[in-house]
Amino acid sequence: MPYINANYLKLKAGYLFPEIARRVREFGAAHPDAKIIRMGIGDVTEPLPKACIDAMHKAVDEMAARDTFKGYGPEQGYDFLREAVAINDFQSRGADVIADEVFISDGSKCDCANVLDILGAKNVIAVTDPVYPVYVDTNVMAGNTGDANAIGEYAGLVYLRATAANGFCPEIPQQHVDVIYLCSPNNPTGATLTRAQLTAWVAYAKQHSSLILFDAAYEGYISDPTIPHSIYEIPGARDVAIEFRSFSKSAGFTGTRCALTVIPKTLAGKTETGEVVDMHRLWTRRHTTKFNGVPYIVQRGAEAVYSDEGKAQTKELIAHYMTNASLIRTAMTSAGLHVFGGTNAPYCWVQTPKGAKSWDFFDHLLNNAHVVCTPGAGFGTAGEGYVRLSAFNSRANVEEAMKRVASVL
Amino acid sequence: MPYINANYLKLKAGYLFPEIARRVREFGAAHPDAKIIRMGIGDVTEPLPKACIDAMHKAVDEMAARDTFKGYGPEQGYDFLREAVAINDFQSRGADVIADEVFISDGSKCDCANVLDILGAKNVIAVTDPVYPVYVDTNVMAGNTGDANAIGEYAGLVYLRATAANGFCPEIPQQHVDVIYLCSPNNPTGATLTRAQLTAWVAYAKQHSSLILFDAAYEGYISDPTIPHSIYEIPGARDVAIEFRSFSKSAGFTGTRCALTVIPKTLAGKTETGEVVDMHRLWTRRHTTKFNGVPYIVQRGAEAVYSDEGKAQTKELIAHYMTNASLIRTAMTSAGLHVFGGTNAPYCWVQTPKGAKSWDFFDHLLNNAHVVCTPGAGFGTAGEGYVRLSAFNSRANVEEAMKRVASVL
Repeated sequence: MPYINANYLKLKAGYLFPEIARRVREFGAAHPDAKIIRMGIGDVTEPLPKACIDAMHKAVDEMAARDTFKGYGPEQGYDFLREAVAINDFQSRGADVIADEVFISDGSKCDCANVLDILGAKNVIAVTDPVYPVYVDTNVMAGNTGDANAIGEYAGLVYLRATAANGFCPEIPQQHVDVIYLCSPNNPTGATLTRAQLTAWVAYAKQHSSLILFDAAYEGYISDPTIPHSIYEIPGARDVAIEFRSFSKSAGFTGTRCALTVIPKTLAGKTETGEVVDMHRLWTRRHTTKFNGVPYIVQRGAEAVYSDEGKAQTKELIAHYMTNASLIRTAMTSAGLHVFGGTNAPYCWVQTPKGAKSWDFFDHLLNNAHVVCTPGAGFGTAGEGYVRLSAFNSRANVEEAMKRVASVL
Repeated sequence: MPYINANYLKLKAGYLFPEIARRVREFGAAHPDAKIIRMGIGDVTEPLPKACIDAMHKAVDEMAARDTFKGYGPEQGYDFLREAVAINDFQSRGADVIADEVFISDGSKCDCANVLDILGAKNVIAVTDPVYPVYVDTNVMAGNTGDANAIGEYAGLVYLRATAANGFCPEIPQQHVDVIYLCSPNNPTGATLTRAQLTAWVAYAKQHSSLILFDAAYEGYISDPTIPHSIYEIPGARDVAIEFRSFSKSAGFTGTRCALTVIPKTLAGKTETGEVVDMHRLWTRRHTTKFNGVPYIVQRGAEAVYSDEGKAQTKELIAHYMTNASLIRTAMTSAGLHVFGGTNAPYCWVQTPKGAKSWDFFDHLLNNAHVVCTPGAGFGTAGEGYVRLSAFNSRANVEEAMKRVASVL
């Protein structure tokens, strides 16, 4: 028999969202009449912007005629999209990113995971707690950790606690770490890093020659004009950071699949013998050898996000979800709960009543209000005592869910 | 600085196809008037089947209305597609594969590479020579090999030679190997494995508890009814093989991106301590944690391949390319060259005249006929003295290219 990657056996239980799906499926099977409202997984519900729909119809037609048909595209993405991204997402905000540093991909989750391919095994890796589980699980799968302890924390990882006491923005570590995952606006807490906080992180990374993996999948939800959308708005970040972006949440692409990763040409890593290696070159090799690009049709849809119509329609889409977030905040606060996030992020981080355990409160809401949340404990030990409520829903569902939840508190 | 994956530094030069692209770009820049005909990279040229176009337009419209909008789909693919695949591609040929064993993905290249994630580091791995470079390069990147020697072969890999003497079907190895890559119809040689040959491979794998990674991306091009399309047509293969399939070549999806991998539930691997582990479970974990599914729109397009119209249109598409292959065979044979493949595969494997080196013949054809081929040496040492000509082109281009090539021989 072939040898398997035994690191997979270190993984605890199921990945969070499949486990939620399992519990919901079981409840649904036992209660076929229950009208379940899903506020758990952060999945969009509203139609794609019309500009994207029109662009994709046009692209489908191009695939129907020999003269306009597209076969293999550049693995890194078409120039039309890489340039639109560089100009609109970065240069417009004073962030010095060029098209050639933008790699179009099929998902931020995928890229956050795949980036480990180009990193070595000897890095000291830091994650926040609570944390988006993919950062941890993919490090476990890659063999970058030891076993999990009784509370589910893996040997070898440095956990940085994000709690109410520090405003869910963990302190800069005292020790040396090589790689740090940061997510702002944060999944799951909805907290954002201020310019000052991000500047401090970049300074730390410069001092320690660390790499920041900056997940900005939710940047479209920032309304406060003082909060950076990109880490490259901070001087010096080009030397220390990779940034992940996605069309999933900003333009409703969760089922359409388009994202991007920025690898600055100024970014370097080293071998164990001290040889300095250009990371842009490594990622180019990975991307061209192990990936074949995003569908042309989808890239045309993503390009349309940057048209005047696309921008206006995307803004409306985000406003819709942020009004939901505001309704959730108001309802839960009125019900006497502490609510964090939900102002510059589509997630509300809600403290459970009377110190209830996250999964118990999850089961309570599922069984009695038929509302699905995400148990905070699924994101790490510091998430215990919280649940995440997602603003990604129709207005009617949010209103109905808040009514039901309030009635069972 | 973070440690990088130094295995990448073992890779020789560029990946074959980017290197070809570079030479063609340089030639084109120096000769802007040259009408270059590309018969190098195996990329389709003809429009998508109308059934797929119609299905994708319909799916785009579904994304435009809340009631039919699709967010995250199942990472493994929608049931409608997994079932269509299981029934049409496997069960119809007597291969015992169920929908739950079919994982929809964005590419066979990606999956051939990603499958290494679930395999351990201690496997003895065999590849054929010539070989599709991705099998080798991804093993190098994963750290499964040592350094390359002077002729570009990596320490730790077992190379099985495919030559004219053995009909380009390498002999079963005498030694034990844990993992074997087989590709039939073969890229690059165009050779196919007969039922008897495939049965012998399955018997070897059973005897040695080996895993066969069977790449059937070109199965749609088989015209000889005695040749198996799937390894699962061979009894016992479910216990020893993973199969990769793609819509890229059968339905023209190279720029649309849809493929699939079959991991039978009967397949197992082992840890170094001898624990037996279900590989379907491992791949499910990988697929759900590191991938987010293929775009809904694209999956609907792929489903349409199995409609009556889709089947008829796909058949026409394949017939078009196979007529090209036949024209190439005839032209090259008439010019006095030895031609292999091109009868059950879209590739012709052409021996260079007078023992010319592959890259020299490549440069000769590019500079003098303005025709791009793929140098056989790029696929391994046994490919030296051959070039691959792809049948993926318009009829006019093939006719013109053959005329030009004949004139410079």
